[in-house]
Amino acid sequence: MKLIEGGICASKGFKAAGVHCGIRKNKTKKDLSLIYSQKRARAAAVYTKNLVKGAPLRVTQKHLSDGYAQAVICNSGNANTCNANGIEIAETMSKVCADELGLDPNDIVVASTGVIGLPLDIEPIANAIPTLSKALSEDGCSDAAEGIMTTDTIQKEVAVEFELNGKTCHIGGIAKGSGMIHPNMATMLVFMTSDVNISNVMLQKALSGDIQNTFNMISIDGDTSTNDMVVILANGMAENDEITEDGEDFKIFMKALNTVSVQLCRLIAGDGEGATKLLECKVENASDENVAKTVAKSVICSSLLKAAMFGADANWGRVLCAIGYSGADLDIDKIDLSFKSSKGEIAVCKNGAGVDFSEEKAKEILLENEIEIVVNLNSGAASSTAWGCDLTYDYVRINGDYRT
Amino acid sequence: MKLIEGGICASKGFKAAGVHCGIRKNKTKKDLSLIYSQKRARAAAVYTKNLVKGAPLRVTQKHLSDGYAQAVICNSGNANTCNANGIEIAETMSKVCADELGLDPNDIVVASTGVIGLPLDIEPIANAIPTLSKALSEDGCSDAAEGIMTTDTIQKEVAVEFELNGKTCHIGGIAKGSGMIHPNMATMLVFMTSDVNISNVMLQKALSGDIQNTFNMISIDGDTSTNDMVVILANGMAENDEITEDGEDFKIFMKALNTVSVQLCRLIAGDGEGATKLLECKVENASDENVAKTVAKSVICSSLLKAAMFGADANWGRVLCAIGYSGADLDIDKIDLSFKSSKGEIAVCKNGAGVDFSEEKAKEILLENEIEIVVNLNSGAASSTAWGCDLTYDYVRINGDYRT
Repeated sequence: MKLIEGGICASKGFKAAGVHCGIRKNKTKKDLSLIYSQKRARAAAVYTKNLVKGAPLRVTQKHLSDGYAQAVICNSGNANTCNANGIEIAETMSKVCADELGLDPNDIVVASTGVIGLPLDIEPIANAIPTLSKALSEDGCSDAAEGIMTTDTIQKEVAVEFELNGKTCHIGGIAKGSGMIHPNMATMLVFMTSDVNISNVMLQKALSGDIQNTFNMISIDGDTSTNDMVVILANGMAENDEITEDGEDFKIFMKALNTVSVQLCRLIAGDGEGATKLLECKVENASDENVAKTVAKSVICSSLLKAAMFGADANWGRVLCAIGYSGADLDIDKIDLSFKSSKGEIAVCKNGAGVDFSEEKAKEILLENEIEIVVNLNSGAASSTAWGCDLTYDYVRINGDYRT
Repeated sequence: MKLIEGGICASKGFKAAGVHCGIRKNKTKKDLSLIYSQKRARAAAVYTKNLVKGAPLRVTQKHLSDGYAQAVICNSGNANTCNANGIEIAETMSKVCADELGLDPNDIVVASTGVIGLPLDIEPIANAIPTLSKALSEDGCSDAAEGIMTTDTIQKEVAVEFELNGKTCHIGGIAKGSGMIHPNMATMLVFMTSDVNISNVMLQKALSGDIQNTFNMISIDGDTSTNDMVVILANGMAENDEITEDGEDFKIFMKALNTVSVQLCRLIAGDGEGATKLLECKVENASDENVAKTVAKSVICSSLLKAAMFGADANWGRVLCAIGYSGADLDIDKIDLSFKSSKGEIAVCKNGAGVDFSEEKAKEILLENEIEIVVNLNSGAASSTAWGCDLTYDYVRINGDYRT
């Protein structure tokens, strides 16, 4: 398996495009994206568990009830959520897009991201769809990745190539997500493509399993969005023998999917609103996986720790504190903690109590922009990783004045 | 019932003092406080649910197992938690204090607050205790309130006067708390005194009941501290008939206690680390109290909403989003939202969707420093209030470099 260029267009038969249609005032920022599969594809998805569900999400849920889709349309700048006619707008978006591409509206995944509670004007979107459709290209991944960005500062695209019974296969993905990120059994917006031939049941199983250890383990700010979804389309054009059950092929597919997801997670967390650092909390030797996950997530969510990491301050007491209130059943007196980066690793706590360490060395380690917080529970064999970012002045600036 | 001056010394027979003993580098900041009751008092307490429990808290728990105490000793600047000899230090602190006051060490409440994980030097504390004891005075509440402060910017003291069977009674309290505040079935450091004659059982019942609607409904940053506790001492010197069961007298006592607690909550939340505003989320017409509390707490904890409030931005979609992911079972389509301050009230959402409102008026309301977020669930008769604060640049500054 290897990482390759091309993102969602790395998978055979997929094209993508992104344009500026006018939802955003900034004309240099693309705000409408389209992904198209040459062949009708099997589709699987997971959605936010927020009771407030964006209108496009509800429409997509309906469209995917038959397990198939052929295109994804997504705008940024407005979430089309908590307004009067969101469902109608999302249906119209699908319809205009389907008509242009000669598809059934039921084969369209529709998504929106941006401010909640404002009416979404269909006009700029409808007007731009013909241009968008003409722009579809095998080099279009970056444009599509830009079109779905909100406060993101970098495009998020990943692709892998691997083999299944002698056939070259691909999974590619793009993501957007920078604030309101604390996925709960679902995630932010992620669109993935694959040319693998896989049954609907196994595709959904792969996705639902994968997110438990990937997108559900990110937190930027503890706020679970109303419009979170991950969708994967698999069009079978790699012509491998259809994956219809557990086994070696499914394992390879899961591994490829996990590779794409983890990369996207790292990109999302590292580009969290205002972030200067990617934080990775690795929990090792937990009594079970649930404990490992609960601890990793609690540490990554602590505002106090996040601020300390921004200040490159080895304030490990805040890590121990966050473990203590996580709700996980564990023995505090067995915990060892260390901080790690490309500059090395430093032990700061042993058996639940502080150890002498060089503040200078700790500072050097923590001044890097990718930090690992290593939690050894010394109680078993389970492990888990969670991703987050530091809490900075810019997070406050961005969110103190997002709407106006 | 009326609010009066004097704080913890408003209750008959109580004296207090605070001095600088040397734990903190800043010599103008008091860092050691003492509260003393002329008569051995009944004591009740609640403690943090964090699995990491500060050493002083564990020692206090042991000392209060007989239901009595006569003095409280508390230092700031070091939490005496997650270090090698915390228990020993807390025991010694109690012993030196008891010897000085001629008391049994078992009648001492011992507490510490500050950085976690550093050894606490007993020497400056032991050396200062004679001076501290001599400084005990009926005017000492402010000094004691200052001595327990960490990043707090204001002293927090409250007292009320009320009557029970013709006798004048009092409850007073001081609190410290500015960061790492998200009480979970307990709270930050609060010491309360009373001259009411009340049995141990009823005193504990009053305290345990009261905190559910007061201290447990605050959040500054979602981090539950390791050293949280609330202690109340009641020495019976008001000479009312002993309260031994539910009834009118107990109701009056509960009301007085609630008045003190709510004032302290407002002081704590409004003085949250870096805060410029007190936020009060009032949830009305919920189907049950649990729903009301869950919703109020979720709203007050949203980093996105907190940042929006700092920016005086009426971004109500974030309120709805936080209600949606709170976990409470409710009907989003029935929710009305408004923002309120001394400048008026403005409706921003009706039946779960946005309504037209004047951004100018909203800005005027939100520029005040006490903001009410009113959530009407239109589904029943239960209500709840939670307190918090905005998320500001200064929160990041304070916590990016707290230790060093």
